[in-house]
This record gives sequence, C-alpha cells and structure tokens, in this order.
Amino acid sequence: MNKLLYGAAYYDEYMPYERLEEDIKMMKTAGINVVRIAESTWSTHEPQDGIFDFSSVKRVLDAMEEAGIDVIIGTPTYAIPTWLAKAYPDIMVTDRTGRRLYGARQIMDITNSAYRYYAERIIRKLMEETSHKKCVIGYQLDNETKHYGTSSENVQQAFVKYIRTKFEDDINAFNHEFGLDYWSNRINAWEDFPDVRGTINGSLGCEFEKFQRGLVEEFITWQAGIVNEYKREDQFITHNFDYEWRNQSFGVQPNLDHFKAAKALTISGCDIYHPTQDFLTGKEIAFGGDLIRSTKKNNYFILETQAQGFPGWVPYEGQLRLQAFSHLASGADSVMYWHWHSIHNSFETYWKGLLSHDFKENDTYLEAVTIGREFAALSDHLIHLKKSNAVAIMVSNEALSALNWFKIEAGAREITGRNYNDIVRWIYDALYEMNVECDFISADDKNLSPYQMIVIPALYAIDRGVLERLNQYVENGGCLVATFKTAFANENVKVWSEEQPGILNQCMGVTYNQFTFPIDVGLKGDAFPVSEEERKAELFMELLKPQGAEVISSYDHYNWGKYAAVTSNFYGKGWAVYIGCKTSTAYLKELFAKVLKETGIWSPDQEINFPVIIRKGTNTKRKKVIYYLNYSREDQKVCYFHKNGQELFTNIEVKEGDVLTIKPWNLCIIEEN
Amino acid sequence: MNKLLYGAAYYDEYMPYERLEEDIKMMKTAGINVVRIAESTWSTHEPQDGIFDFSSVKRVLDAMEEAGIDVIIGTPTYAIPTWLAKAYPDIMVTDRTGRRLYGARQIMDITNSAYRYYAERIIRKLMEETSHKKCVIGYQLDNETKHYGTSSENVQQAFVKYIRTKFEDDINAFNHEFGLDYWSNRINAWEDFPDVRGTINGSLGCEFEKFQRGLVEEFITWQAGIVNEYKREDQFITHNFDYEWRNQSFGVQPNLDHFKAAKALTISGCDIYHPTQDFLTGKEIAFGGDLIRSTKKNNYFILETQAQGFPGWVPYEGQLRLQAFSHLASGADSVMYWHWHSIHNSFETYWKGLLSHDFKENDTYLEAVTIGREFAALSDHLIHLKKSNAVAIMVSNEALSALNWFKIEAGAREITGRNYNDIVRWIYDALYEMNVECDFISADDKNLSPYQMIVIPALYAIDRGVLERLNQYVENGGCLVATFKTAFANENVKVWSEEQPGILNQCMGVTYNQFTFPIDVGLKGDAFPVSEEERKAELFMELLKPQGAEVISSYDHYNWGKYAAVTSNFYGKGWAVYIGCKTSTAYLKELFAKVLKETGIWSPDQEINFPVIIRKGTNTKRKKVIYYLNYSREDQKVCYFHKNGQELFTNIEVKEGDVLTIKPWNLCIIEEN
Amino acid sequence: MNKLLYGAAYYDEYMPYERLEEDIKMMKTAGINVVRIAESTWSTHEPQDGIFDFSSVKRVLDAMEEAGIDVIIGTPTYAIPTWLAKAYPDIMVTDRTGRRLYGARQIMDITNSAYRYYAERIIRKLMEETSHKKCVIGYQLDNETKHYGTSSENVQQAFVKYIRTKFEDDINAFNHEFGLDYWSNRINAWEDFPDVRGTINGSLGCEFEKFQRGLVEEFITWQAGIVNEYKREDQFITHNFDYEWRNQSFGVQPNLDHFKAAKALTISGCDIYHPTQDFLTGKEIAFGGDLIRSTKKNNYFILETQAQGFPGWVPYEGQLRLQAFSHLASGADSVMYWHWHSIHNSFETYWKGLLSHDFKENDTYLEAVTIGREFAALSDHLIHLKKSNAVAIMVSNEALSALNWFKIEAGAREITGRNYNDIVRWIYDALYEMNVECDFISADDKNLSPYQMIVIPALYAIDRGVLERLNQYVENGGCLVATFKTAFANENVKVWSEEQPGILNQCMGVTYNQFTFPIDVGLKGDAFPVSEEERKAELFMELLKPQGAEVISSYDHYNWGKYAAVTSNFYGKGWAVYIGCKTSTAYLKELFAKVLKETGIWSPDQEINFPVIIRKGTNTKRKKVIYYLNYSREDQKVCYFHKNGQELFTNIEVKEGDVLTIKPWNLCIIEEN
Repeated sequence: MNKLLYGAAYYDEYMPYERLEEDIKMMKTAGINVVRIAESTWSTHEPQDGIFDFSSVKRVLDAMEEAGIDVIIGTPTYAIPTWLAKAYPDIMVTDRTGRRLYGARQIMDITNSAYRYYAERIIRKLMEETSHKKCVIGYQLDNETKHYGTSSENVQQAFVKYIRTKFEDDINAFNHEFGLDYWSNRINAWEDFPDVRGTINGSLGCEFEKFQRGLVEEFITWQAGIVNEYKREDQFITHNFDYEWRNQSFGVQPNLDHFKAAKALTISGCDIYHPTQDFLTGKEIAFGGDLIRSTKKNNYFILETQAQGFPGWVPYEGQLRLQAFSHLASGADSVMYWHWHSIHNSFETYWKGLLSHDFKENDTYLEAVTIGREFAALSDHLIHLKKSNAVAIMVSNEALSALNWFKIEAGAREITGRNYNDIVRWIYDALYEMNVECDFISADDKNLSPYQMIVIPALYAIDRGVLERLNQYVENGGCLVATFKTAFANENVKVWSEEQPGILNQCMGVTYNQFTFPIDVGLKGDAFPVSEEERKAELFMELLKPQGAEVISSYDHYNWGKYAAVTSNFYGKGWAVYIGCKTSTAYLKELFAKVLKETGIWSPDQEINFPVIIRKGTNTKRKKVIYYLNYSREDQKVCYFHKNGQELFTNIEVKEGDVLTIKPWNLCIIEEN
Repeated sequence: MNKLLYGAAYYDEYMPYERLEEDIKMMKTAGINVVRIAESTWSTHEPQDGIFDFSSVKRVLDAMEEAGIDVIIGTPTYAIPTWLAKAYPDIMVTDRTGRRLYGARQIMDITNSAYRYYAERIIRKLMEETSHKKCVIGYQLDNETKHYGTSSENVQQAFVKYIRTKFEDDINAFNHEFGLDYWSNRINAWEDFPDVRGTINGSLGCEFEKFQRGLVEEFITWQAGIVNEYKREDQFITHNFDYEWRNQSFGVQPNLDHFKAAKALTISGCDIYHPTQDFLTGKEIAFGGDLIRSTKKNNYFILETQAQGFPGWVPYEGQLRLQAFSHLASGADSVMYWHWHSIHNSFETYWKGLLSHDFKENDTYLEAVTIGREFAALSDHLIHLKKSNAVAIMVSNEALSALNWFKIEAGAREITGRNYNDIVRWIYDALYEMNVECDFISADDKNLSPYQMIVIPALYAIDRGVLERLNQYVENGGCLVATFKTAFANENVKVWSEEQPGILNQCMGVTYNQFTFPIDVGLKGDAFPVSEEERKAELFMELLKPQGAEVISSYDHYNWGKYAAVTSNFYGKGWAVYIGCKTSTAYLKELFAKVLKETGIWSPDQEINFPVIIRKGTNTKRKKVIYYLNYSREDQKVCYFHKNGQELFTNIEVKEGDVLTIKPWNLCIIEEN
Repeated sequence: MNKLLYGAAYYDEYMPYERLEEDIKMMKTAGINVVRIAESTWSTHEPQDGIFDFSSVKRVLDAMEEAGIDVIIGTPTYAIPTWLAKAYPDIMVTDRTGRRLYGARQIMDITNSAYRYYAERIIRKLMEETSHKKCVIGYQLDNETKHYGTSSENVQQAFVKYIRTKFEDDINAFNHEFGLDYWSNRINAWEDFPDVRGTINGSLGCEFEKFQRGLVEEFITWQAGIVNEYKREDQFITHNFDYEWRNQSFGVQPNLDHFKAAKALTISGCDIYHPTQDFLTGKEIAFGGDLIRSTKKNNYFILETQAQGFPGWVPYEGQLRLQAFSHLASGADSVMYWHWHSIHNSFETYWKGLLSHDFKENDTYLEAVTIGREFAALSDHLIHLKKSNAVAIMVSNEALSALNWFKIEAGAREITGRNYNDIVRWIYDALYEMNVECDFISADDKNLSPYQMIVIPALYAIDRGVLERLNQYVENGGCLVATFKTAFANENVKVWSEEQPGILNQCMGVTYNQFTFPIDVGLKGDAFPVSEEERKAELFMELLKPQGAEVISSYDHYNWGKYAAVTSNFYGKGWAVYIGCKTSTAYLKELFAKVLKETGIWSPDQEINFPVIIRKGTNTKRKKVIYYLNYSREDQKVCYFHKNGQELFTNIEVKEGDVLTIKPWNLCIIEEN
C-alpha cells in the first residue's frame, strides 16, 4: 500500500433498498478509499449446500472498481449458514455449558471436520471470484477468531494426545508436574483421562486453554494456506485481531496468542473500540496499536473502529478526527469503520455506523468528510510511521490464564474482579500518561537487547528459560521492572519450590515467602511527592525481604512495617526494580520517573503529561513526525522541544521553544525539517 | 350482577381441620358475598386418570348456596396433577432452559395435545357438576394464563407455518424484512429454520414472542368455547389477568395481549398486588384498574388482591378499606382477596389471607367487617361506575417485547434495568398524581376520536398504519404527546430507513438521527418552575432537530446544546408534543399542565394533587360520584369544586366551595345531587 | 490420648521433591507430635481397579514411627480416582443441576452401590496396612462428609419408601400433613411421586433434605462399622465435621446433623477456619468448639485449622499462638493445621500451610515452634478440660432447612440474605462477648435439667413434644429465652393452626397472629442504657399481644405502637422471655444481663467483656483453669476475680484482686491452687 486507507465495512446484502450508487457517492465525498466486504454473509453466498451466489459481491466489486475504491475481502467463515447447522448439528460448538444453539456468530466448532470441509470450499469459491479483481487489495481471514470454548470429544482426544507428546508418554512425569495426586486426580492410564471441563486442577485447566489457543493459531494458518494458493503477490493477508473485551477493547486477548497467530499474515490488523465523549483518553487506541504493531514489528491496519458506535459513544465535535489521527500516531496505515451504515434489524442495531438508519448526513459523517480530505492530503507524510522505542512491556497469555485460575483476590473480603489485564493496563497507562511510548514483546521473544528498559507486569507463570534470559538481560546492562505476581510458577503453573520471585530473585536481590491483602497499609521511605492517599498499597502485597536490594518503599503498618514493598538492585551492568504491591498511578509514575531518569530515557516529552499526548516516529521521507494530541475539552498550551519543523495541517513553521496551542479534542502534527 | 361483590378465594381442600361452617359464619360477619373456588385443585378433583371426585366442590356449593354466598368457579387447568405429569412427561413445558420439572403451577405446555385432552375433560366434568347451581354466578377460565416460554417442537413447527403464512411463502421477503442476511442468519429453505431459542435476531425473537402471546389468546378462547357449551345465560365468563410482576403488579403484561384475550370474556378480571404501609399510593390500583377496564371498555372484577399479603404488606389501620374503595373508584364491581385464610404448607405460607394461620380475628379481618358493611350499604351508589375520560395512553406488547430485545440502556455505563413499563409508568404516574384520569388503548384501536389527548410512551415498534392514524388524529384536532423511543421501527422491528421519529415526524415537525445517553445534561429554555435537579435529561436522549416545531426545552450541555429536547408543533387542527428524553416527574407534570391547559382539559381537580387523589364517574342512577382518597398518614383538607351533593358514608351534604377534611388513609365519596 | 496433640496434615504424595527426612526434622523442631495422612489420595493408593500401592503410606508411617510422631489415618473416600469415575459414570452425583463432571472432591453419590463397593475395599485394604502400626493412634472417616445434593433415581425411590414408612402407607395422611392439595400437588398413588427436585412444597422439600442428611449419617456409621472390624482398642475413630461455610466457618452445618452423626465416633473432630489480622475475634473458634464439644459432651479434636490460610489470613505476630490456645480453652485436645506445606499445583495453592511453597522457615512456622514447646510443657495442665455450663443454646437442622425454604426476608424490599445461622450467631456472639460460656443442645435432647437457662434462636419448625418439654422445663424452674420465628410450624413444616408461638405461648404468656418487616421502628419501654440507634427493631417483627406476660419493650411506631416486642413471663417455678424481633447486639446484651442477673448466673466474669475473653474449665488434676484471651492489638488490663492460682506460662502466682495485663493478641492461663 502506498496510501493511507480510509474506509468502512460495507454490506450491500443488508440494505433495506437499493443504495449502491448513492453510497459510493457519499463515500467519495468522505474520501473513503477502501471497503471491507463479504465476511459475514456465507448464507447469502451459499444459500444451499453447493449452490453459490456471489452476485452481491460481484456487483459491489464492479462498482467499487469503477469508483476507484479498493476492497478487502473477508472470508465468510465466522458465521455459518442455517442449512449447515441443520445438516451437521455437531458443528455447533460444545463448551462448558453444553452444545450451543444456532444463532449468534462465532459459536461453531472450528475443529469440526464438516465445518472445515465447507469452510474450505466457500473460501476457494470466493477466492476464485475475487482474486483477479484489481480493486481487491487483500484478504482478511475469518474475523476475531477464537476457540469459543470448544471442548468436543475430538478436541478432548486431541488434547490427551498433545499431553502424551508433551510428556513423551511419561504418565508419572505428567502427574507429578501437574500435581494430580492432589484430591485423587491422578490419571494412571491415558484412557482414564476425564472430561477436562470438570477439572479443578489449575495446571490442567491452563494447559487446556493453551491448547485451545493453539487450535486458533492452527485454524488461521490453515486459512492463510488456502488463500495463499489464489491471491496475487500484491494482495495482502490480514486478520482482525481483537482484545479482552470489557464493553470496550481493554487488554491482552485471553483466547489467542497474537504474536503466534500473526505469523501467518502479511500484515497485522485489529479492531479497537473505546469510550468517547468525556471519557476519550486515547489509551485504548495507543494500547491496542502498540500491541498489534508489535506482533509483526511493523505497521498495521485498523480494520474496524467505531463511527457513532454505542449510543454512549457518539463523538463530540472533533473527536472522530482526533481518534483517526491517534491511530496513525501509533503506526496504523488505515482507519476503517464498523460500519458504513447502521443496521436496521437483528443484533447490532445500536452499534451505529458512519450513517444512521436514515442514510442522511449527520455530524459524525460530516466530520469524516474532513478526515478523508486530510488523510488524502497528508498520506505521504503520515503513512508507514516507524517507531524505535526504548521501553518494552512483556506480556503473556499463559500468565493471563493462570491468573484467571488463581485469582489475585481469591479469599479477599472485597472482590473487585481485577485480573492480569488490570495490572498490564496499570503499567501501560502510567507510561502513556508520561508520554513514554513502548512496544510489547512476547515472553517467547529471545532478542531483548533492543530495549533499554523492560517492564514485566504480573508474569505469573513462565518457564525458567525466560526468567534466566531476563536475569541475563539485566546482567548485560538492561533495566528490568517487575511487579508482584511475577515469576511465581513455572510454565505448567506449578509454583516454584525455590524462593520467590522464582529465579528472578537473582537479579532482583529480594525474596519473599509470605503475602497478604493490604488493608489500610501505607508506603513509607521514598521521597516521592505524592499525597497520603496516593501512598497506599493496593490489591495484593508481597512481604519482601531484601537480599542485597535497596529499599525504595517499605510498608507503613502496625504488623507489616518490617517488610519492603518496592526495591531496587544493581546487578551486573544493569538494574532491577521490584514492585511488591499495586500502588496508585501517581506513585507508579514517580517511580517510573526515577527509573527513566537514572537509565537516561527521560526526555523533555516526559515534562508534558496527559491530557496532552505526544506520539512520534519516522516517516517514509525519513523525517521525524511528532503528534501532539489534546484529549480534553480545554485548549492546551505546550512548549515545543523538538527540532524546527512544519505543522502539517496548517503548513506553519514551528521552532524549538515555540508554544503550541492545541484546541479541544484536536491535534498538531509536526514534521521536523 | 346487581350488587358489589366482596369476597375471597376459598379452599376447603387446604384446611387443616373441618372449618366450613365456622368460616361461613365469619364470612357472613364480614359481609362477604362471593367466594372463588376450584381453580387450583385438579389433583383433588381427579385423583387418578378418569376418576373424578367433586365432593369438596359440592359441599362448598351447597353450604354457600344455603348461606346466600355466591360462587365463582375457576377451571382448574393452571396446575396439573402428579399422575398427569408422570404419564405424559412432555406435558411439562420446554422453554429456553429445557424441559421443566413438575412442581410449580403454570409450567405445563398449553399447546400439548395430551394436556388439552385432559384439560377439556376436567372442564366439562366440572361444568356438569356446577353450572346448574343457583349460587354459581360465573366462571373464571384458568388463572393468570401465559405461554410459560413454550418452545417445544410442535410450537416451533407451528411458528414456521405461521411465518410462511404471514409472508405468503415468500422466503426472500421474509429474509429481507427480518434482516436475516446479517451474521449469515439467512434461511434459504423453510426446512432450514433453526431452533428459535438460539436466535440473536431481534425481529425474529419479537415475532416469536408475539406468536407465543397468540397461543395464550387461542387457549383462553378455546376454554371459553367449552364453558359456553354449559353455562347459563346469567353466568359470566371472566379471567384473572395479571401484570408485569416486580414483586408487585407493575405494568403491561409481557406475555399476553390483554385487549385481544379479553374478547373471549363477558367481563374482564384481574389481580392487583401492591405495597402498603408507608408505600401505599394507590398507583397500582388505579393503573391496573384503568388498564383492565379499558380492555372491554366496561366495569371489571378484582378477582384477587392482597388481604395481609407479604409480611411487609400488612396494612396500617384504614388501608384495607382505602384500598377496597380505590378499586371501586376505578370502575371495579368486586373486591376479592387472595385468600380467605393463610395456608399452612407449601409455597404461599407467607402470602397471608384475611385470616392468619390461627383463624382468629385479627386487625385486618376486623377492618374487612367494616368494608363489607359499607359495600352492602352503598352498593347501589357505587356499582357499575362509568367513566368518560378525555385522555388515553396507547400501549403495545410489541413495543414492550422490542425494548426487551433492544434495551434502552444497552451499552450504557450504568444499567438500571429500566424498560418499556418504566416509561409507561413514568407517564401514567405523573397524570395520576395530577388527578388526570385516563383510559388505555391498544395500538390496534382504530377509533381515536373519543379522546382529546393521546399519550404514546415508547411506542417503539409499530406498523405504518398506526402512525398514519396518529398523524390523522392530530390533523383532525387531537393532541398527541409522544416520548423518545417512539416510532423507531416497524411492526417487524425493522428500523425505519426514513427519518426519525418514523412517519410521526410529519405531525411532530421534528426529526433526529443521532442519540446518546445523558451524563450531566440539563434542560434549558422553558419557563417551568422546577429545580435545577429536576431539570435534567435522564436515561436516553435523542438529538432533535426541529423541522417547524417550536422548542420547549433544549439540552443544556457543552456539546449537545444545539439540539432540542422537547418540542411542540401545530399540525392541521391539532397539536403534537415530542419528548426526546426522560425527564423528572416534576418537569413532566409541568409539561402536562401546559398541554392540558392549552387543550382545555384542565379543571379544578388538577389544582389538587397527590396524596389526595380524585377519581370519578357516573353511577347507575346517572349521578356523578366523586371519590376523594387520602394516601397519606396526615389529615388532608381540600376544597370541593364539584356540584352540590351528599357524602355517602356520612350522608352529610357538601356544597361547592366547602372544605373537605379527609382523614389519614381514608376517603370521602360525594354523589352529586 | 494422654497428651495434647499438635500437628498437621501431611502429604508425601504432593511433594515436588524428596522431603520426608527434612520435613520430619522441621516438625520435631516445631513440637509437632501428630500428622494426618491418606485421606485425599485414593488414586495414588489404588492406581487401577484392584491394584494397590500403599508405599507412600508405609514409608511415612515408618518414618513417623521412628521419629516418635503419631499418625491419624484418613479413609480416602471423599475424592475418587479417575478410573472409577470413567468406569462407573453414575458414581458422579446427580443433583439439581444434573450429573456433575469429574474433577472436584465430594461430588460422587455416596449412595451409589459401585461407589460403596470400591470405597469398602479401599478402606479394608488401608486398615490391613495400617492398623497394626504403633504410631497409628486413630482413624478419621472420610472428610467433611455431606450428601452433595444427591437426587439420583435410587435416592428418590428410597425417599418414597421412607415417606411410606413414615406415614404407615396412609397416602391421605401424607397429603394432608404436607398440604399437597395446594396447587394440585396431591400424590394420589405412590407411583405418581414426582421428581422431588422440582417441588415447590416446603414441607416436602424440607423432608427430603432431612432424608438426605440421614443418608450421610448412615454413610458415616457404615464406614465406622468397617473400621471397627480392624482397629485396635486403643485407636479412636473420629470425623472431621465442618460448619456452614461463608468463606469461613460460620454456623450450624445445613447438610448433616452433627449430634446424630457423632454417635458412630469415639471422639468428635472438626475443622474451624476464620478471619485473622484485625478481624480475629475468637468467635468462630469458640462457637465451633462449643458446638462440636456438645455433640458427645466431651473433648474433641481440631483436625484442621489454618496456618497461613488464605492470603488475607496470614496471622499477625502472636495470633497463631492465641488461636491455638483458644482451641484448648474450648475443650479441644488437639490443634492440627491444614496443612504442613503449601501445595504447588491444583486448587488450594493459596490456602497456605505452615510452610510456604519454598519450605523455608517463615514467621508463621517460627511461631509454631513456640506453640509446640508450650503445648508440650503445659499438656498435663491443659488436656481434657471439662466444662460445666449453666447456659445452653438449642439448635436444629430442621429449623435451618425450613428457614431456607421460607426465608425470613421473603417479600422484603431489601434482601440481606440473613438466615437461621444469623439468628444463632446473633445470640451466641452476644453471650460470647459477655463471657457467658454455653453448650449446644439438639432439639432431640430430652434432658434439659442440667441447664439454668436455655436459649432457642429461631426454632422455627419442631414437633409438639419438644415444645411441651420446653414448657415443662420452665414450669420446673428453668429460664427459657426464645426469639422470633420460634415454634411457628410443626416438624413437617406445617404451620400451627393454633395461636403463635405454637404450644410455647403457654409458658411465654404471649401470642401473635400478625408480623411485618420493621422500617424505622424503635423499641420503647425498657430502661436499658443503649443509644437511639441501638434501640431499633431489625429484620422481622412479630406483633405480640401479651396474655399475662410483662412487656419489656414495645414497638415505637406510628401504627405498631400498641404491640409488644419483648416480653417476660413467670410460669410455674420458671421464667420465659420472648424476643419478637431482631435487635441490636447492644440491646440483646442488656436484655441478657437482666436475665442472667435475675436467674443468678451473673458472675464477675461478665463485668469483663470482649475483647478480653474468659474461658474456663476443670483439668485432669481437678483444678480450675481460667484462660484470659486478648483479641486486640492493645494491652488489656483486667482484675482477677477467681481464687488464687498460678499463671501457667510464667509460673507467677496470681491473687484474687490482682490486675492482669494481657499483651496484644496474647493470653494468660491461670490454674487455681
């Protein structure tokens, strides 16, 4: 791609009346240069077994090609036709609740062979119909694919075989490693393996979830193989990844390893949905973008994001534009809406598109017209933005799974439901507010040297090799920051029988073997300028005993006062910081400031703070581009500290030391000279 | 009937020891002149298949006839015998949760042919045993009949046939109208129709619920047909309708269309249960009464209401009497308690009757003695009260269903669970507090001309014909008030692709195509004397753009200030008011006051407000009867504005301009001369 | 046993590496003299059907015997092997939710014959392997046994036979007594008996739960029979009873009658888990201890209690020791921890043992070392402590069941979920805080004469005989205190058709037949020095009408002011107090003070109050031993009012009138001279 893509999902099939010509006219007005089609409408394209009808696809392709609008084709496999469910009832997924009834999308069994047979056939037919079209620039495989909890008989049998392979058929090793003697759960013959859905063994439960995630990776790779047989070289393969969903995109996806699944793609893609109005912060846009950019260490597509979205998300004036450029500021090469129009029936009637149900112009659409014009004008300056971040956050699906089985607050008086992603976002959001951009790395990533600083939030269950690599990273001069609940168990969720934090106590210079919930426990000892209220231990506290580490804060409490809370340790050429409890964001930012300053990462950008967010990178002209984004309803004035350059919307020159005024829900983009 | 009925449900079968003579004595003391029997005890009357034993019915009939107490016979079909469930397991209803276990009442499948066979036989036998008895004045069909979620195979097959008929076998029209292309839900052959219980398509879901409501109407009509073969001409057929249940009678019944089902009856009946003590307001009594009176535009029976009720409902001194007369004030011709005595076992042990478990006199029973005496004395003045209301509220089961599928707050940060009936009651309660009496009309009602003003709360999904009729109603001089969420979708819950509010924008002179949730949004522009706090948009707000309408209030908000909230429009000879958001009751009452004054409905009664409630009508002597009801624990003084008349309890003359003092939880009834 | 036992559950099978020698060394250091083994590891001991492997048991027995540590053997039947569940799927319990999946412990059907066959065989094999070992001092049958909701076909058939026997095949008597005419639930032929799981009849539901409890009693007795065939005379049989679980041990166990089940044992045992840190009160330790001591009116074992427990339970300095001696103060002869080490996998990873996962010394373990030393030193003074209490609380599983079917708050505006045990604990905790020690008695207990005062909290459903016995008890001079919800229904949960409180109104001199929920209702008339806020009726209020009784408090309310709330009545030689509503604990303690003083139970110990708790008894030297326990983080000073004696930890003499200073979370024990 050599231009920024601006687009929307388009469903000719859903239209209440003939709209194609009129829609294309309105799209052109809005600068829309790409649509995504076909992913949801298998039942329209194959109305009966073996009878195909791609007429709606063809007519849209023809019209778009004529209008000069590109098309991304989605394989229509995430929602199956009624006839298929009727003919093969066991295509519907069997999960913990039993066999699901037909109705929603994404409730079939992706491992079912009948499903695979029909999915392959429709993909091949669709490829034959579309791959030769000039306007077709690429393919999206399925959509937001997950395992849907599949636990059917064939999946369970495959799991047993997977376990036998993993343990080289040594059943005693398996029982020992997974602790199955406990509560008489020992499996003394492979054929005694019980239905995994009933297990209370966290090691077995987590392993099954990992196996299920593997099924998704295999499925995406399988689809990529089919598409690759047909697609032209200039056509890409992408996938629409999504995130842990909390009525918005929130954190690391529990049901799929993005890093592994992205290997089958030529370019990563995702959808990001987030609050707006008074709650628009840019955090989810940045978080999701940084994460998905990291999967292939390259630019990515926003394949879906909200236009009007939920009723509560109708954007204030300026917000739709601010959001669009926020995506580019993270390295996106496209912004595409879910969806063009608002749907008149069924399920997502209140997940509104760029157009409302009346297809008339509205404030949101009118703002898109501005965005489209600006995207076209600035495409060469903003496309393919490359980043080179000093800081990385290491994330892990395995840690996430394990902290769902062993909840942080299990047994606490008050359960707030906070889990792995709350810890990840606590770390990420603090860095974001400080204008410290970061990459994400998988725990599998062996090359840590590009980063001056690595943060590992709650890396609860991980294999010894990763922890030894992190020790080595510090020894070699890296700065490592780890939080509580890190390195507690091995990759089989068997708690280390060595001192905590397992293996990592070497670089951290601290150990503990007791922990509790903080009730009115303060943090004392540091010199951070935060209030009494912000100086509290929260959620969980490990009772740290320094073994050489320096104490930054210890607990301020009647009984726990002798234990450290946050420690710092020089190890080899590097530095390791351990945070034994959750703290306020204010405290965490002060701690990060200390670390960033001492590691030399601190820059004038960190003097500026949320709601002004600075994001930067290098464009295809090898020039540095700096975004100043104002996530507030007030004017913001900030001093410009970078090299002289030009503001891209206004073409006004900006000099180092100038004061920039950024309007409410607005932005400046400066390209250095 | 030529006398007010005062009575209770009576179950000789439940008595711990022989009580009949003693009970009749206590009933006579309390002025009880009717009992309702037999509806719950099929297993007693048919202990085994084909073996009948009506001895308890006969002995009660004989005793009542001798005592001069009338009897209403209930057909005992809403609770089935153990032997029947055992012999025909599929008689138990299959709903979304699967096949229900025997135990509770009202969990059989009313469409099951075995059930129908046995139900018909027991009805016929009971009719043979009872219809010739003089004391039997009428029949109640079944009890609080609903569809119980029935989704058995035969129901689903019938539903497919119903859809085929509705769409004249045009499967494409069906798919298009219901939007089934979405998420691959297309049904391309009728035999592919999936189990409806799994659907996520709101149109299909709502249509199935409508179909299920039709099953109930058919069932009641079928029972009426059987009873009609036996009953004497002077015997009535009624049914005990109930309401949306929220630990009290609350709103429009979701599972049955009262207007349609009432056609099979000679007189409508219902049960009304409501809070008492400090929470007694009379609202549910008036609401339920107005609604059920409207079904046949005639007087109705209160077949059940609470005596002591739940432990929290034990009435304060005076309340039982106030409640009884409140029912008459709405047009009821009977007040009957659930139940005579308190039940010693099983499920409703704490739903207490007039007598407690010890059968002794208690404060509640003693108050009933007073009521019974007054009913007898005033029967000729109070029976058959006729109303002629200027205001009507239009209600719709279809709108209710649709707003359950598309919840008002879906996607909001805080979910309060408010639904269709909250909007209906917001409207009704404001009018009630202002002493504006109203009728209810079905959306099917073609004759709107009797009313000067019609209010349509959240008439979300309705066919074009109704909306055009409402436009016509305004054009002809009517006053129409509509709330947000009105006329958004057609009768198939397909959102209008025209401007909102669909079709009705013609008379309203206003359109919108965006909406959001109000967070700290005020209402500005009107001159209503309400506080800042009462001047807030609540729950949902449509961003109105006047097309000729005058703005009464617009939104007071940083970003939404340019949009109207409440508008007023002259159209033809009439007037149309649109309320684009929920408001405080205080604001709504001011708005209604404005409308009522300008339409000439305003009278001195509206100068008086809750807790003094005025209800009126014309009695059989063609005289106007005016109730003044005091729902408070203080004396209330109000000025009497009607024609000179006589207070019926005291026989004191009352002149226009006199001050009436109404005691706590008490009332006056004035019959104009 | 002639020494205090101090121990832990020990699972060699769970160890991540060879630990036995090292563990025994650490145990000896901590003074641990007993371990409990084998109860959870059937799958290890019988890896395949009929193949036995007791090597881990044998090696632990040998090692313990050599080390001089005693062993309690648990029969391993509460958690079944995978192969057994696979071979006999119907071994998994069928409850209200259907057939459970294998995974957790305690989800098999204890009535299933295959289960019984295999359970018997493993018990016999284990007995053969262990009963001759000198170190084996006794056996624990199964663990925390309950019925797990078993409702399989055979259980339901047995229940019908049980009902037929109970009613001597008189089906009409059964229908009448259980009120089955209601809602057509009559069972007119035994073969029509429906699946009990569906019933809505509270009498039937409670009877089934009673029957299920009987299954557990039968199961424990059956196991005792097998063990008795093998065990030596000097070996005991115990069981690990537990309590209603609310994330801690809370109240009377719903699923088992402790009094009945204890008959099969030689000594009772239990586990008690409770909050610590700022929430340690000793209440659960005392409550559980008093209850389980009462089952056999003798000393008992604490077979499990927490070491570190949940993360929120890690004890403050001194608390582990305070807890240990608190158990002895209630009459325990052992304190044993769940468990020795913290488990590295599976489910209870965060239910931490004496050692953490790293097996290193930690603060909790180090405190155990002190306890072990003190137990050994003081064993002769503290073992077999005997009590002679003047006060008893009568408890009943049947009342508990019935109040689950007929919830106290059913129909209330706010549901707090309070049930039978809240009333029991309201009573118990008030007495505990006043240092009034008490026994528990079963409603079946015919010998009431040992007690000067009996309290019956919410004895809702009970047979006439018990109530007549209580009348007799008062007549003979006893003091009886009853709360609201007492004597409302008979043993079949059929409400008395006589006046309330049924039968007991005779001694109470008070009746009522109405009740409601208190909303802002005060208590007036008494002279208790409690605040306005503490003088409120709570939860439920009966409208009492004295029939000879004196009114202590009546209700302070607009409408209910004429009714009594708390009454007092002299009857025969005794005294009966009725409490018609829940009150504050402050009010209740004042009321108890009045009663205790007038009955002569009051002593100087009652001048001292929580957080200083006094517990006492007579030791084997026939000397009185008095514990002063400080459940607070401050020093407490109290005056010593007993005879001169010696403080056992310090050997300092203490004289009557001396001031004792008790350190935070610490205690003194004085043995009278």
